Amino acid sequence: MMTVLLRNADEKSISRLSGSLGKKGLKIVGMEKMGKTHALIETGAISIATQPQDVELAAEPKCSKQFRLASREMSLGDTVVKLNGGVEVGGRQLALIAGPCSVESEEQLLQTAIEVQKAGAQILRGSVFKPRTSPYDFQGLGVEGLSILESIREETGMLIETEVMEPSHVKLVEPFVDMLRIGSRNMQNFELLREAGRSEKPVILKRGLSATVNEFLLAAEYILSEGNPNVILCERGIRTFMTETRNTLDLNCVPLIKALSHLPVIVDPSHGTGKADLVLPMSKAGIAVGADGLMIEVHPNPKAALSDNAQQLTPSQFADLVKKCVPVANAVGRTMRSE
Amino acid sequence: MMTVLLRNADEKSISRLSGSLGKKGLKIVGMEKMGKTHALIETGAISIATQPQDVELAAEPKCSKQFRLASREMSLGDTVVKLNGGVEVGGRQLALIAGPCSVESEEQLLQTAIEVQKAGAQILRGSVFKPRTSPYDFQGLGVEGLSILESIREETGMLIETEVMEPSHVKLVEPFVDMLRIGSRNMQNFELLREAGRSEKPVILKRGLSATVNEFLLAAEYILSEGNPNVILCERGIRTFMTETRNTLDLNCVPLIKALSHLPVIVDPSHGTGKADLVLPMSKAGIAVGADGLMIEVHPNPKAALSDNAQQLTPSQFADLVKKCVPVANAVGRTMRSE
Amino acid sequence: MMTVLLRNADEKSISRLSGSLGKKGLKIVGMEKMGKTHALIETGAISIATQPQDVELAAEPKCSKQFRLASREMSLGDTVVKLNGGVEVGGRQLALIAGPCSVESEEQLLQTAIEVQKAGAQILRGSVFKPRTSPYDFQGLGVEGLSILESIREETGMLIETEVMEPSHVKLVEPFVDMLRIGSRNMQNFELLREAGRSEKPVILKRGLSATVNEFLLAAEYILSEGNPNVILCERGIRTFMTETRNTLDLNCVPLIKALSHLPVIVDPSHGTGKADLVLPMSKAGIAVGADGLMIEVHPNPKAALSDNAQQLTPSQFADLVKKCVPVANAVGRTMRSE
Amino acid sequence: MMTVLLRNADEKSISRLSGSLGKKGLKIVGMEKMGKTHALIETGAISIATQPQDVELAAEPKCSKQFRLASREMSLGDTVVKLNGGVEVGGRQLALIAGPCSVESEEQLLQTAIEVQKAGAQILRGSVFKPRTSPYDFQGLGVEGLSILESIREETGMLIETEVMEPSHVKLVEPFVDMLRIGSRNMQNFELLREAGRSEKPVILKRGLSATVNEFLLAAEYILSEGNPNVILCERGIRTFMTETRNTLDLNCVPLIKALSHLPVIVDPSHGTGKADLVLPMSKAGIAVGADGLMIEVHPNPKAALSDNAQQLTPSQFADLVKKCVPVANAVGRTMRSE
Repeated sequence: MMTVLLRNADEKSISRLSGSLGKKGLKIVGMEKMGKTHALIETGAISIATQPQDVELAAEPKCSKQFRLASREMSLGDTVVKLNGGVEVGGRQLALIAGPCSVESEEQLLQTAIEVQKAGAQILRGSVFKPRTSPYDFQGLGVEGLSILESIREETGMLIETEVMEPSHVKLVEPFVDMLRIGSRNMQNFELLREAGRSEKPVILKRGLSATVNEFLLAAEYILSEGNPNVILCERGIRTFMTETRNTLDLNCVPLIKALSHLPVIVDPSHGTGKADLVLPMSKAGIAVGADGLMIEVHPNPKAALSDNAQQLTPSQFADLVKKCVPVANAVGRTMRSE
Repeated sequence: MMTVLLRNADEKSISRLSGSLGKKGLKIVGMEKMGKTHALIETGAISIATQPQDVELAAEPKCSKQFRLASREMSLGDTVVKLNGGVEVGGRQLALIAGPCSVESEEQLLQTAIEVQKAGAQILRGSVFKPRTSPYDFQGLGVEGLSILESIREETGMLIETEVMEPSHVKLVEPFVDMLRIGSRNMQNFELLREAGRSEKPVILKRGLSATVNEFLLAAEYILSEGNPNVILCERGIRTFMTETRNTLDLNCVPLIKALSHLPVIVDPSHGTGKADLVLPMSKAGIAVGADGLMIEVHPNPKAALSDNAQQLTPSQFADLVKKCVPVANAVGRTMRSE
Repeated sequence: MMTVLLRNADEKSISRLSGSLGKKGLKIVGMEKMGKTHALIETGAISIATQPQDVELAAEPKCSKQFRLASREMSLGDTVVKLNGGVEVGGRQLALIAGPCSVESEEQLLQTAIEVQKAGAQILRGSVFKPRTSPYDFQGLGVEGLSILESIREETGMLIETEVMEPSHVKLVEPFVDMLRIGSRNMQNFELLREAGRSEKPVILKRGLSATVNEFLLAAEYILSEGNPNVILCERGIRTFMTETRNTLDLNCVPLIKALSHLPVIVDPSHGTGKADLVLPMSKAGIAVGADGLMIEVHPNPKAALSDNAQQLTPSQFADLVKKCVPVANAVGRTMRSE
Repeated sequence: MMTVLLRNADEKSISRLSGSLGKKGLKIVGMEKMGKTHALIETGAISIATQPQDVELAAEPKCSKQFRLASREMSLGDTVVKLNGGVEVGGRQLALIAGPCSVESEEQLLQTAIEVQKAGAQILRGSVFKPRTSPYDFQGLGVEGLSILESIREETGMLIETEVMEPSHVKLVEPFVDMLRIGSRNMQNFELLREAGRSEKPVILKRGLSATVNEFLLAAEYILSEGNPNVILCERGIRTFMTETRNTLDLNCVPLIKALSHLPVIVDPSHGTGKADLVLPMSKAGIAVGADGLMIEVHPNPKAALSDNAQQLTPSQFADLVKKCVPVANAVGRTMRSE
């Protein structure tokens, strides 16, 4: 039995593929709609195809009953998310995302951007919408922060990612950023996942505080099944009995996900530990275990930050981190941009 | 120091209260806006007042820095949420909410409603929007289900609650239901909380899978600070290492919340255990520990249910549960409607 | 297939039983030694028999592969542990165990004993060996404390239980106490379990901080398989992400264990919450859910206690607790001794 | 304030040190006995001294109230445990411990020993006493297994470590092994810790399933305070809600412990993941994060193993692991013995 997946396929392309498969002696025995994607159930091959001509053949497919589009069984190889400027997530070179927890001002973001870019980061983290436990805490600059993101992108040429917290944010931020981020608290905000699935922008999906890997991949499936193939999974620590660290960074999950799924995985040791001192060693560990990139919180003056003071690095600590991670990346066959 | 809270106060009523306090020899030393609520910081008393004339005095207030409107310190007594037909949540009589996990058809819901009402339930549970881990699972009847809710409400006279999963659902479901429910996965969907805070309908807020009590009360604070005072907290089990039950119903949290907050607390032993056999004993325990009500999943044919098969009771099991819970309710000074 | 269990059976009684079964037309198809207990595998019945003549028949036995002697399938009814003075654990009357966390002096223990006995407790808790997280904390009075236990037992006539921490403690404390207690940290100290299994004294086995119910019952199985049938399981809270209570009292486990095993279960809300204020409501919940008794920490002056200050009750708080628990006990068909 | 620690000090050496400190103008203001170690509380310096002449001075000591001998503040540098044959744990070269979960036969152990030694392991893991959840599972070869350990040690010259489960095991196994291991379930078996503290053999102490780092270091303190300075901490996974891996290997704890304590830390990715496929990537991560060594389960035929089938590597998988870990070790400034 083979399954061919057609993303965003119209009637015409489905019928064209069906014909071309027929010419190869394959008969379509069924079809299943998964969001905007169609699965043509056949004999002999599996592929994720955006165009019927992309169909390729693989032996002995076993389609997982739960996550399908996210499953390694449904893919011929690892997904590499391609961004502007030749930046990739999931390729040989590690992706390095850095920036402040929250955008606080243009000055703060620009200073951070210049320094993290120089140190090796290709992508700037910058949240303008902040999910905060208390309604009385700083909630981010909101819509006003978007123009800051825009001007920093122009000035530095860096790629920019930002958090979306509700469905309406997706369209709102698209013009200003290169990637969307869905935070831990929203990993199962299914309307938000669906809306991100309708976007052209790649999506960084952070693991929920108490999500299993199965639940994590099924959340990705919500995005994939709407037609957006560019999902990057981010391990950022789970909630356990441990109170001496903010969260427990679960590196077990990186090779576990790699075995189950073709999607790229990055690691966020800033939230995963909650302690600036632990960010460097856990970054090395994240690279060694096989992650495709890191997301690190960097602030020009962590003590004065409006959120996450204890875990943000200074720009010079970040530059030092990159230098010390390069040999580890090389030791596991990866490269890393650095000063 | 005293704090007077004014909900939805306009300039005029604030100035009027300020004057009336002045006549009592109290001087306003500050004012803080928490959402649509104003806190007038004074000497000697605390109250939540919807009308300035409601202001009462209490000694030695200590305002919690985190949750304020949810805090017991900010209230002169327990909040009792008043619903149509004289039904209350937080009063001497326990509130009994029952119904299927998902609304599957008018027939299914009507049959359930008639039976649970007869057995003692005042409020019908009925989800038409279902947050499901997998995008390929039954997602609820959606908007079409709302007319079912409406006709059952008319036919039976029961109060009806339903889940809202995104901000736009709030206005959508308001005409059809008596209460809104925010599920565990959305406990920190802050935009949804804010929108529910702008509704006239009482809100059942379910505890997140890995939420502390502090985080739970701060989520309630998002609703309260938008001006909606009718929040009912629902303990429904937390995620622990235990896999022999679906979740671990944390009854410790009921008296803990009662000590910290004036809000009513109900218990959901269906999700809290995930096993039909454990629902009765844990219902008794929930009542004994001081909960203000129960939410129980009941389905005419649990084995055929489209979700949560293992934990739903049959109507006759539910009727038996109510009968066996009445003596426990009486033993702790509460009453319970029963056949 | 039927399994007959013979406890402490010698060759002669096995052969006698084998003969008597033969007369009933049953053929022994195998025999398995589980510690000092023999299982005779047959067709048609299951029983735990201390004497061959006790053998009874039951239909459709399904022997659990894991815990056997602890399994409900292996028993014809609930185990009732019988103690001196007609006190029982597992019968209709609830067992009430109370006393200080640690024995600190004869005066302290005597005062506590007199007061808790008057309030309704039948069994005095008194630890002389204390497992403490730090080697620099008070480690208990040790051997010297045993004579205090002895004199209090004489003076008050109360039954006494105490903790054993290593195999050699079992024989050491036997002459002075009526029950042994194995603490959470030692739930999988297998040598200690085996040694307690060779004792004549009933054993209270506390659940480990992160033990599943399966692991808990298998720990009991270590004791049972050495020949001691009198095991009382004690739920005392598990370790979860919750830090606002010392542990999370897992009442789900009480009916879960009752479904799986014939052994009596008691609840310790003092350790299960770590907060004196929560002990009363959680005691009521424990009784309502079906526990066979309570273990409560009581100290004449909790603030001055050498351990567990925050969770111990005063004698008058304890007397109040008993009075308030009696109606709950009655509501679920149990009785409770009280002043 | 300064604290001088004297291990195993007699009256005479204490008085001698007191005099020599006096000559430096330092006055002893107090003395505290911690097991066999004395702390002389002074002004200006901290040191762990086995001989009074070893006393050195350090600035600004802050003595942790909880763990003292384990604390970094109490030491002038990292502890390096020195074993026979120049093997060290805590030095620049990583320690590599490998072998079967259980010793099953001389043949099995010899074959494993030869292969893991060839691949780079310096220390052979071999348990003859096995703590098993069920009393009906294989419990290890027991005393008879000790002669197997002895003959393998002679034949291969490898260092050997084995588990001790109760106090009496310590003296029993000492003649046959080079290191003692205390397992997770016994991390708070305080009598066992004390007995290991009286041994001349280094002790590998495995973290408990739900132990915080503070509790872990206090367990080490029980050993240290009896006079045994050679404690090696082993992270082996904690119990969390995650069921897709056997445990959650908590690598956060490695740099956290390194910041708090001078003791060496090794990592056990076999138990930490429970899946053979994850052992290699998590070994790399463990080395990258700064661990001083690895403990890996290796069995000639994992599928036929009497315990832990799913997580043991074959000898050739182990040899491959070592080769792939060497570059990571080098990348973080460590060396690793390999074929």
